[in-house]
Amino acid sequence: MQLDVSTLPALALGCGILGTGGGGATDIGLLACLQAVQDFGPVPVVDLDDLPDDGLLMPCGGIGAPTVSLEKIESGYEGTRLREMVERLHGTPVVAFMAGEIGGSNGLIPAVWAARAGVPVVDADGMGRAFPEIPQVTMEVAGISPNPAVMTDERGNVVVFRAVDGHWMERMERAAAVEFGGMSWSSEYQLTVVEAKAGAVVRGSISLGMRLGNAVLQAEHDPVEALVQELRAALLIVGKVMDVDRRTTGGFVRGSATIEGLGADAGRTLRLEIQNENLIALEHERVLATVPDLISVLDTESAAAISTERLRYGQRVSVIAFPCDPIWRSARGLELAGPRAFGYDVDYVPVEELHARA
Amino acid sequence: MQLDVSTLPALALGCGILGTGGGGATDIGLLACLQAVQDFGPVPVVDLDDLPDDGLLMPCGGIGAPTVSLEKIESGYEGTRLREMVERLHGTPVVAFMAGEIGGSNGLIPAVWAARAGVPVVDADGMGRAFPEIPQVTMEVAGISPNPAVMTDERGNVVVFRAVDGHWMERMERAAAVEFGGMSWSSEYQLTVVEAKAGAVVRGSISLGMRLGNAVLQAEHDPVEALVQELRAALLIVGKVMDVDRRTTGGFVRGSATIEGLGADAGRTLRLEIQNENLIALEHERVLATVPDLISVLDTESAAAISTERLRYGQRVSVIAFPCDPIWRSARGLELAGPRAFGYDVDYVPVEELHARA
Repeated sequence: MQLDVSTLPALALGCGILGTGGGGATDIGLLACLQAVQDFGPVPVVDLDDLPDDGLLMPCGGIGAPTVSLEKIESGYEGTRLREMVERLHGTPVVAFMAGEIGGSNGLIPAVWAARAGVPVVDADGMGRAFPEIPQVTMEVAGISPNPAVMTDERGNVVVFRAVDGHWMERMERAAAVEFGGMSWSSEYQLTVVEAKAGAVVRGSISLGMRLGNAVLQAEHDPVEALVQELRAALLIVGKVMDVDRRTTGGFVRGSATIEGLGADAGRTLRLEIQNENLIALEHERVLATVPDLISVLDTESAAAISTERLRYGQRVSVIAFPCDPIWRSARGLELAGPRAFGYDVDYVPVEELHARA
Repeated sequence: MQLDVSTLPALALGCGILGTGGGGATDIGLLACLQAVQDFGPVPVVDLDDLPDDGLLMPCGGIGAPTVSLEKIESGYEGTRLREMVERLHGTPVVAFMAGEIGGSNGLIPAVWAARAGVPVVDADGMGRAFPEIPQVTMEVAGISPNPAVMTDERGNVVVFRAVDGHWMERMERAAAVEFGGMSWSSEYQLTVVEAKAGAVVRGSISLGMRLGNAVLQAEHDPVEALVQELRAALLIVGKVMDVDRRTTGGFVRGSATIEGLGADAGRTLRLEIQNENLIALEHERVLATVPDLISVLDTESAAAISTERLRYGQRVSVIAFPCDPIWRSARGLELAGPRAFGYDVDYVPVEELHARA
């Protein structure tokens, strides 16, 4: 498998769906990827089994507010600087880049850098979706150290962080990203292939992204329906965006969106609460889906995901929800990324159970 | 010369005077120093000429808002962590610690760490006073790189910065210091002894601090008068603090203080504008002294300096001003730390000229 002009559009669609509203709009990441493979050639996608056990994987991507990422574009050299510093700090070469999160533009950006660097990307990521905060990765669940983290901006500044824990890594990196203008690029939780194989990553993320993208592209009639089938997703509502309350604050996009039902869903109202990603879907006080399960807002016509920074009044949307990777349903996973981690005083109930009740 | 219980009190007094309001209140630095020399023995003070030319000097101290430094105390291990990381990054041992700024508590803190580390402090600093911002050091004037900077907090977090210039180093370090709670500890602009000797530092800073402290301690009648004589300082006003406007914001203390004359100065009013340090002394619109010259507020009875975070209504004070190190009067020095660098639309006139006119 390789990433080139023929495969990237499907991956971009899939990353959007897996982004659950966050990770940055995929159109920018796709443009950067297409340019990179045109300039430097296709990027091989490798399986963990194809890499040496002691090889070093570099998780990487953007950090900041997706609203800012719409206009604060990377220079293209960020990945090179991250790789140089990561290799220097570990004293060993990086064998593959890995998306810290497969969701949104962050699922594509490692391929931009990989094309330039001449290294493969690995068919895995650290979330199986997108999450807003640094320690919300499967590597943290697995006990991998976030240190050393490396961050760079488009100007050429480079910062290395050694944090006492994931919480302080988030605080330090977020503060730096805000100072850099609200977006930055970084690598944390570098790990070896053998650690990744032992369960510290979500495997097959790029393949999954492609499969979802192809399900949409190849749908004969109703792409949303095709995707719902492919994902065995719950279709929460089909309707229209009525209101968006969105602020860019503290290095995040925060707010909520209200969707009114149309057609068979007329009279229903769904509210999404947002921190970069869609965190929780509520109908009045009833929870329809919550983190760590995935909630994606799709264009009803095309099934292309609409990221939180692009939501606006009048869009015709279908909201779907589907199960997260099982690692997030562990006690530590829910502690890091369950509803209470985001301040919601509700117990986590898997989306398939919520949907079965409904 | 060595720093011990017999010499530290004079140095603390001198650092206060050279702090020109900033660098942190010296009482905390003095307490930490006295404890350190009691626990680990006296700290040798060495001249640059006593050190090997290729030896690495580690400038260091606190960064943040002096108000915060009154209650956010270091753990004692900060210097050890800074040294370890500096040595690792340079691949060579540190031969001496150096105060980034001799002014205020920052003139003393390197001795706390030196006692614990068993290394000497060098009789020099990077300012000959205190300034609020990272690149306002003689090393920047001399063209020494600020990279790599190392920062740590009392929790054990460590950050390494490689900035594209001194301005970005200031922005990145300030943002991190704010995130750490408003105070942090750092090293920038590491240099070799031969670079220091070539004019990149202010020599004799510790000796000067001691001499000023001893002039105050040994004064038979009027310590302020003794100090004015020793420094050939201009006595700007003798009076009483009438008003203090002080905010802790963006990692700095900012504001102003108004001093009304008493006795021979009755009827006069002096205003000091503050960014950690006293930046400019104004009588109505007339400039009496400005950065980079030193403006210090002294207790009229004892001649102990009163730092900007300790200024309060009713204090009987004498305000003095005296010339900065000549390096600050160079074009690059004034560009970095002259009145315009702080947003004042006035040309720099040396304090001795201003005083001769008055």
